[in-house]
Amino acid sequence: MIIVPEREIADLMTRDAAFGAVENVFAAMAAKDAYNFPVIREAIGHEDALYGFKGGFDKAGMTLGLKAGGYWPNNLEKHGIINHQSSIFLFDPDTGRVKAIVGGNLLTALRTAAASSVSIKHLARKDAKVIGMIGAGHQATFQLRAALEQRDFEKVIGWNFHPEMLPNLQKVADEAGLPFEAVELDGLKEADVLISITSSFDAILRADQVGPGTHIACMGTDTKGKQEVEAALLKRATVFTDEVAQSISIGEAQHAIADGILKPEDITEIGAVINGTHPGRTSDDEVTLFDGTGVGLQDLAVASVVVDLAVQKGVAITVDF
Amino acid sequence: MIIVPEREIADLMTRDAAFGAVENVFAAMAAKDAYNFPVIREAIGHEDALYGFKGGFDKAGMTLGLKAGGYWPNNLEKHGIINHQSSIFLFDPDTGRVKAIVGGNLLTALRTAAASSVSIKHLARKDAKVIGMIGAGHQATFQLRAALEQRDFEKVIGWNFHPEMLPNLQKVADEAGLPFEAVELDGLKEADVLISITSSFDAILRADQVGPGTHIACMGTDTKGKQEVEAALLKRATVFTDEVAQSISIGEAQHAIADGILKPEDITEIGAVINGTHPGRTSDDEVTLFDGTGVGLQDLAVASVVVDLAVQKGVAITVDF
Repeated sequence: MIIVPEREIADLMTRDAAFGAVENVFAAMAAKDAYNFPVIREAIGHEDALYGFKGGFDKAGMTLGLKAGGYWPNNLEKHGIINHQSSIFLFDPDTGRVKAIVGGNLLTALRTAAASSVSIKHLARKDAKVIGMIGAGHQATFQLRAALEQRDFEKVIGWNFHPEMLPNLQKVADEAGLPFEAVELDGLKEADVLISITSSFDAILRADQVGPGTHIACMGTDTKGKQEVEAALLKRATVFTDEVAQSISIGEAQHAIADGILKPEDITEIGAVINGTHPGRTSDDEVTLFDGTGVGLQDLAVASVVVDLAVQKGVAITVDF
Repeated sequence: MIIVPEREIADLMTRDAAFGAVENVFAAMAAKDAYNFPVIREAIGHEDALYGFKGGFDKAGMTLGLKAGGYWPNNLEKHGIINHQSSIFLFDPDTGRVKAIVGGNLLTALRTAAASSVSIKHLARKDAKVIGMIGAGHQATFQLRAALEQRDFEKVIGWNFHPEMLPNLQKVADEAGLPFEAVELDGLKEADVLISITSSFDAILRADQVGPGTHIACMGTDTKGKQEVEAALLKRATVFTDEVAQSISIGEAQHAIADGILKPEDITEIGAVINGTHPGRTSDDEVTLFDGTGVGLQDLAVASVVVDLAVQKGVAITVDF
């Protein structure tokens, strides 16, 4: 059994590697070579914690296992550790034995950033120049960094419910040598690519605040009740997702589905675009929307890469289990 | 993070410790201090394997986590390892961090044996003399060994679909200094306590093959479609179980429920008897039946004990994770 502790991940994993792993597994999902198991998510009645398991099997990549963990809202204050805590467990698909245990905190951030980045590669206009951010928290910086690698962006604009957090985005723009501009929601219309990454339970962005030809990746909605954009935007846009089952139940599409203005069959798995079985964007005026809900297979995919890298670089801990 | 490999379990865990852990967690379940999460069980489409997760949280014992693994039918032939492979992962309920990883193969056998043993302690007649076994496989030896500790049994009788396996039971009887007798199904009527532990998909035992006052523990049915005893026996008996939700869906009670001859409210959690909120057996003629379906909390409970024992005895492997 191989162990890769959380502290090793930052030195091992690259955005490139996460991108490749997530792109591959989205492709495998659309080709029906990989599937996610039903998600377990429980409010355990202790420390206000949410705990659960996201598992899956990728027959193409031969990756089997689960991410386990959740959200402990008092961690930072009580224990000085981050509130999101997760670990990834890989099993040998040939025998059912445990193969590896990998710290899942940074990997979760990287695989979530990789997902919107994959959607930008395959759905945004090639000539996209302005990227807009809705949300400026810790995860927003991961999304922005990964997104900036996909097009020759010339400007970053951003909005956040708490404007005092916008310097988080400014810092990433500075690193990339790009100007940053804080805008009102109406100002986001200038963006060619938009990423929303909030914990909102009410639509932030109206459909008429999105310009023609925009690609928007909605990355924050992963629970029943959450919402980042007006449902009407999903009617206007061509809608893509990581997994349709999650998109319509816990993803951004849940509201348009509930309103009856979108049907499950209107939603395309991004993997179909990667595989070339769906054309993706078909005009420069088309609005494309990626509903990124986050699936267990993404976690398994990046963890599998990290295990290989840890072994190569000699930092994997091996235990005879 | 503490690691207790499979090879250490046999020297650490005792039947007594497993019994206590399982009795406690059944009590906690009935007191609503502990609950199991929905079970994930997937035919993954590779090696004919069944893989899944059984998780739960015991607030009384502060045990959180899951057992992951499953059944790989080609393991023995292809890899020389057992077909059932499982591992138990314990998490710190205060923080969500991984606390321990424990080999789950022997523990699964011990916790399953402990369950029927707990049911015998609380439901069998005090003067039970003859114990009967339906099933003579590897797991049957665990059930019998644990059961023999609960009453002053004077004889072991047994039946198996493949009679050539009956020496497995004979060996356990010999160890205990008890006579063993192979019987036909009709001969099982002599038993004061019966344990069924098979993989049958058809009723083996008829209701009229059970004598008055018998306690029967049905331990083999853990999947939709499996069945060990005639549904009419569940109407005749007072029915107990580990968890009602599993009993009526994947346990022995599924058939009596489907036939409409038993209602979920007719089934009592064994924990209620342990806690003294249900009287259990009320006469020497009453037939009691325990539907042991196997819950994740049993696995967590025995794993938690093993971790403590491994630390005490200095055989726990500690990894800075």
